[in-house]
Order: sequence, then structure tokens, then C-alpha cells
Amino acid sequence: MSRVVVQKYGGSSVSSTEKIKKIANKLIERKKIDSKIVVVVSAMGDTTDDYISMAKDITKYPDKRELDVLMSTGEMISASLLSMSLNSLGCEAVSYNAYQLNIQTSGLHGKSYINDIDVSKITESLDSGKIVIVTGFQGLNDEGDITTLGRGGSDTSAVALAVKLNGSCEIYTDVDGIYFTDPRKYKEAKKLEEIEYEEMLELASLGAQVMHSRSVELAQKYNVELYVGLSCSDIKGTYIRGIEDMKLEEKVITGLATCDNDAAITIVDIEMSNVAKLFEKIAIDGISVDMISQTAPVGSKVNVSFTIPKEELDQCEKIAKLFVDKEQIVIDEDITKFSIVGLGMKNTSGVASKVFKILSENKIEVKLITTSEIRITCAISSSCKQIAIQSIAKEFNI
Amino acid sequence: MSRVVVQKYGGSSVSSTEKIKKIANKLIERKKIDSKIVVVVSAMGDTTDDYISMAKDITKYPDKRELDVLMSTGEMISASLLSMSLNSLGCEAVSYNAYQLNIQTSGLHGKSYINDIDVSKITESLDSGKIVIVTGFQGLNDEGDITTLGRGGSDTSAVALAVKLNGSCEIYTDVDGIYFTDPRKYKEAKKLEEIEYEEMLELASLGAQVMHSRSVELAQKYNVELYVGLSCSDIKGTYIRGIEDMKLEEKVITGLATCDNDAAITIVDIEMSNVAKLFEKIAIDGISVDMISQTAPVGSKVNVSFTIPKEELDQCEKIAKLFVDKEQIVIDEDITKFSIVGLGMKNTSGVASKVFKILSENKIEVKLITTSEIRITCAISSSCKQIAIQSIAKEFNI
Repeated sequence: MSRVVVQKYGGSSVSSTEKIKKIANKLIERKKIDSKIVVVVSAMGDTTDDYISMAKDITKYPDKRELDVLMSTGEMISASLLSMSLNSLGCEAVSYNAYQLNIQTSGLHGKSYINDIDVSKITESLDSGKIVIVTGFQGLNDEGDITTLGRGGSDTSAVALAVKLNGSCEIYTDVDGIYFTDPRKYKEAKKLEEIEYEEMLELASLGAQVMHSRSVELAQKYNVELYVGLSCSDIKGTYIRGIEDMKLEEKVITGLATCDNDAAITIVDIEMSNVAKLFEKIAIDGISVDMISQTAPVGSKVNVSFTIPKEELDQCEKIAKLFVDKEQIVIDEDITKFSIVGLGMKNTSGVASKVFKILSENKIEVKLITTSEIRITCAISSSCKQIAIQSIAKEFNI
Repeated sequence: MSRVVVQKYGGSSVSSTEKIKKIANKLIERKKIDSKIVVVVSAMGDTTDDYISMAKDITKYPDKRELDVLMSTGEMISASLLSMSLNSLGCEAVSYNAYQLNIQTSGLHGKSYINDIDVSKITESLDSGKIVIVTGFQGLNDEGDITTLGRGGSDTSAVALAVKLNGSCEIYTDVDGIYFTDPRKYKEAKKLEEIEYEEMLELASLGAQVMHSRSVELAQKYNVELYVGLSCSDIKGTYIRGIEDMKLEEKVITGLATCDNDAAITIVDIEMSNVAKLFEKIAIDGISVDMISQTAPVGSKVNVSFTIPKEELDQCEKIAKLFVDKEQIVIDEDITKFSIVGLGMKNTSGVASKVFKILSENKIEVKLITTSEIRITCAISSSCKQIAIQSIAKEFNI
């Protein structure tokens, strides 16, 4: 019995009937090698944005149940067109939607989670030689209402199908794989042949927008191999897989991410008892705080630093003034968050000290530091970003 | 318990978010009088045509199952937007699709028939005070595949719901009712206050495109009163109902229709034995024949006349030449089919002779005649159309 291949095509890959026809031709070629193919499609190009603007024409706060009904039609359209295209080329195909597969979800409208999928119709169609097209991004809740999984949810649909069908999963998009660091920011960035789930999740949380985090978590949980690549292209992409399946010798560092959107705030001599209250007030206002660091107390007072998105600086300053004087608030907008990710850090001691040594040798001042088991993040001056990337890449031989 | 009102809005009535908002406001007003309202919507404006052209971009002959999937999304979009609009105005509403109501159909894709609808979700929602929006035009077959009912099928969806909910049915469109004759052709045409089902069916078969014939048949079968009117307007429309419910004294003639699309063919001296063969060949070629008349035989030969659509004249002439010489085929392209419809003809003798007398007094030559129990159709010269309409309308006092 041949293995099932689940492929997912994003909105930009199915943005026109021409592109859909191209995918159909690629699928027919692929079917000669892999006889059982399931294809998950997103909505065509800007459809989702068009729908949102229609809903906003109606009302500023559209009913969430009805918004999900509206949204779900985008994938039905692209699924039917791809199936038509395959059928017209003599390759039998059939499209299925959330109702036909009973894609059960729970959670809120617009951000539901998949609980289960009934794949009996899919296996039946695959066994009869058909390519199966599935509408991504959507499911049904216990009331039988249509739900959607949130932006990028089609990735999760594809992984869930691969789990249920015990298959592999290929995500086709408009980038040709996962890079060591963002190739738009650092031209010499190398593409990775493979990356481990945890590493990918750290990179995703640092702003690498290639993959939907939930889909990577799901793949990790069920050990489904993911492939990320350019649609309708022979360029090799990147595999996301478990450490036990990695082919290559383990690298200490796999990825490197930078983020320029944050500013650092330092509050000098704040009463220790007020620190928790400060962060509580910040949380209530929905400001996302990162990189908190606190110095040891002097008497009952401490210094505390953290980063927040620049656009929330004013709001955050107002809150801080409830606890300290204006002079005690120091703001630094000239920071770049510089993150190094690698599973190898777990087993290799001294990675952090090596990183700090390299930065110091290159006269790069480290303003703040936070770490996880497989990540080191430093706040550095924005002007040092390029030299930091280059020197780290050179020293770690990547 | 208050009676359920089923309203249907056609594509031109929901062609923009502005128009949808207008309908929502009208519905809120109406709900103060009728507490239980179900609304059936068509796809917005040109959506259906846009979908067909997308499908044609993919392939000349799109897979019919997938075409139905594509088509069905149009009604989901308009249903969700109308529900959003009502909810935003503080009026609770909910949209349901073919899956949620298990709208069972049989027959071919693109022209399916409704077998049953599970209205439990609808009655539950109505009982809790919600306006219910239903996607028209669509259902599911035994395989759980989406089917559509053919152009104008939303009318049938609305009548079927009215049957199941024991309610009345209002069809809102871009014309303000049913006219004695087409007001675009005859300016003085009067709007009818009411018309009987059979009369409406005859008019529909003669080209009055206001109502989907199947919906009128269904309404007749279950004696559901239909109302046809302009959407979002207070202009009085037309009721379509059974003879037992008609308020007014019965009129002999209710409607008058003309059609200029046909030509008449007369075949002179054809062998009687060939007549059946001729019509068989014509039927195989899919040419729709109307108004057949045959003279009494002279020896073994007869003259036979019939009308066909002008665009099929060449094809039909070729077939005729298989049986007779060119000289025996007489073609008359200058004809208008002039039809008079009225239930009253059943009980009033001499209507036909009165009609012929009026036409003759006005020097209008009648080229061909066919009749049914409640209809008389004459082929006359196109130039006599206006005078024929005027004289008949005057003599029958309409």
C-alpha cells in the first residue's frame, strides 16, 4: 500500500485559474510516483481580504458565526476549481468540504481547533484512484455551524489530514524553504535542508511567518514530517522533522532571527512590591511584554528592564508613571532583538558564552539577555545588526 | 401561533452590501407585524455569471459535481451578509445552508429537485425569535454532494420551505408584479392583482420570466399562496393563488403574451407516412417545435405547418429536404406568436370565435392556431402585434 501524500497550497499559489491549472498539471506528474494524493487548498489570493472588506461594509463588528460562513466559501471555490481542472485533464478528482468530512472543531469562531476528521470518504476516493481536494481552514462545531481555524489554518488542516491518513505533508507556498535567517535582511542567508520541530517553533515565534505555529506543534506531536517549498517548482525546499529522523550531523545553531519592532524600557529604583502591580496593569492593557530582566534589590528597590512593541511605548509610559517619577523611566528605541536558535545548545555547553564573546570582540553592546533551552535572545543596538549576523554566522560556520 | 412568512430575494435585490442593508431594515419593520420570518436569498448580482466564467477559464466542460460546489457558494455569501446585517442592527438572525437543513434532492447536478427539507433548526430558531436566512438554489443528493436546482431555483427553495413550514411565500424581484401583458412591449399593460396557478404556468411557458415554473407548480400542488413584488418597495404586487381563494369575479382573459423569436415552416404535399419521420429527425436534433397543424390528406399527401426558433431554421430546412424538394418548403419569418390565457375560457364558450372575429375585423391574418383548455395561440404577422394587443384588450375590457 502506497503512502498518502498530503499537499497544501496557499492563497498566493492558487490566486488565478492559470495557477490552478499549473498545479493540476504538476499533480498529474506527481501521481505517477505517488498514487495517493490529498490536496488542501486555501482561498484564492485576496479572496479572504475581499470578504473581510465586504463584511466591514455591512458592519464594523460582523457576527462571528456568519463571518465564518462567509470565509469558508473561499476554500470551496478554489477546491472546486482545482478539481474541475484535474477532471478536465483526464485525472479523476473530487473535492470535499468540512461537512462531507465531518471536520470537528472546538473553540471560538475564527480561531477553532480541529478535534477529529472522518477520512472514510477520502480513503474510499483514494482507493478508487482519485485525487482528493479538501477545503482547508474550516470545520464544524458541535452545533454543526461552520468554524474557521484562523489565518494560516489551512497548514493545520493539512497536518491533521496527514496525521489521520498516516501520510507525509508538503506545504507549498511563495517562499522556497526555511532559511538560516531572513534572506530579505541578510543576502547570504543559506536555506536549510532540514530543521527540527522545536527549532522551527522558536523561529516561528520570533517572526518567521512561513509556517503556522499550530501546524508545526501538531506535526511534532504526531511526528509527521513536513516539507516546505515553492509551489510548482523543482527547487529543493526544507524538511521539518524530529531529531531522530535528521540526516545530518547536528548543528549547534540552526537559525537566527532579528526583530526591530521593539523598544526597551528600564525603570530605575522601583519599589519591589510595585513590580508585579506594574506588569499586571500592562497585561490588562493588552501590551505584550518580552525580555524582562531585573537586577538584585538595593534595599526595597530594584531596576527592571523589558521590551515592548514601539507603538505601545506611550501607553506603557503612562502606566509606569503611576509607580515612579518621569526621571526614573529610561527609554531606548534603538534596539534590535537578535535571536539564535538551535537544538544543539541543549547538549553543547558554553554556546551562550561563545555568543557573548563574539559580540564583545565585535564591540557590540548587549543591552538585555533572555534565554530558553534552545534559544538565546540579546537586545543590541540596531546599527550592529549586520555585523552581529555576519560574525555569528562565521564563527558557527553557517 | 403566528403564521410563517417565507420571503425570497433574487440576485438583483442583493447585488450590493447597500441593498442587503436595505433589506435588513425592511425585515426589521416587517417583523413587528409577522414575528416568524424565513428569508431565502439568491447569489449577489452577477456572482453566478462570474463563477461560470471562472469555470470556463479552467475548462470548456466543467465537471458538473464541482460546478455545483462552486455555484453553491454564492448563496452562502449573500446569506451570511444578510444575517450579519440583521445582527448588527440588533435583530437576532442566523443563516443555514443545505447541509444544516438537510435539503435532500434527486436528479442531475445543475437541475436537481427538492425531495425534503428538515426544518427543525428553522422552527427552533424562529421560536427563539430569530429571523432565519436560508441559502436558496441548493441541496444535497444521496451521496451528500452539493446539488443545485437550476437557474431560478431559489424560487423553488422558497416555496418548498413555505410548504414545510405551512407558511405563505413572497417572491421579491426587480419587477413589481405580474402584468396582463409584457409592459415593455405594451405600455398600457395593467398589473394583475391576482392570477391563478394554471394561468401563471401558461404565461411562464410563453416566456414570462418573472417566476420559475417549477416553483409555481409546487405552490399549486400544496396550495401555497405566492406573492410577487418589487423588493424594498410599498408598491402592491401580484398574488398567485388557487381559484377557490380568488377574491375577484372571474375574468375570461387574464394574460396576453407575444413572442417574436419563431418562424413558421410549411411543407406542401409531403407523404403522410413521412410526417412522423420528419418530426422524429427534428426532435433528435433538439429543435423545439411548436404550433404544429396539418391539413386533411389529398390522396396520400398532406400539408403540414409548424413554428421553430428562427436560429434553427437552416438546420430544420436541411432535414425537411430529406423528404421533399426545395420548392415544397415555404418559410415565413414574419410571424409573432400571440397567446391569450385565461381560466375563464374553460367555462365561457365562444372565446376563440370572439378572438378570431376581433382579429378579422382588424384585418389581422391568422396564419396558425393552437389551443389548450385555458390558452389560445395564433401566429400573426409581426406588424399586426400592437393592434392585436389593443383590440383584444379593449374588447375583453382589460
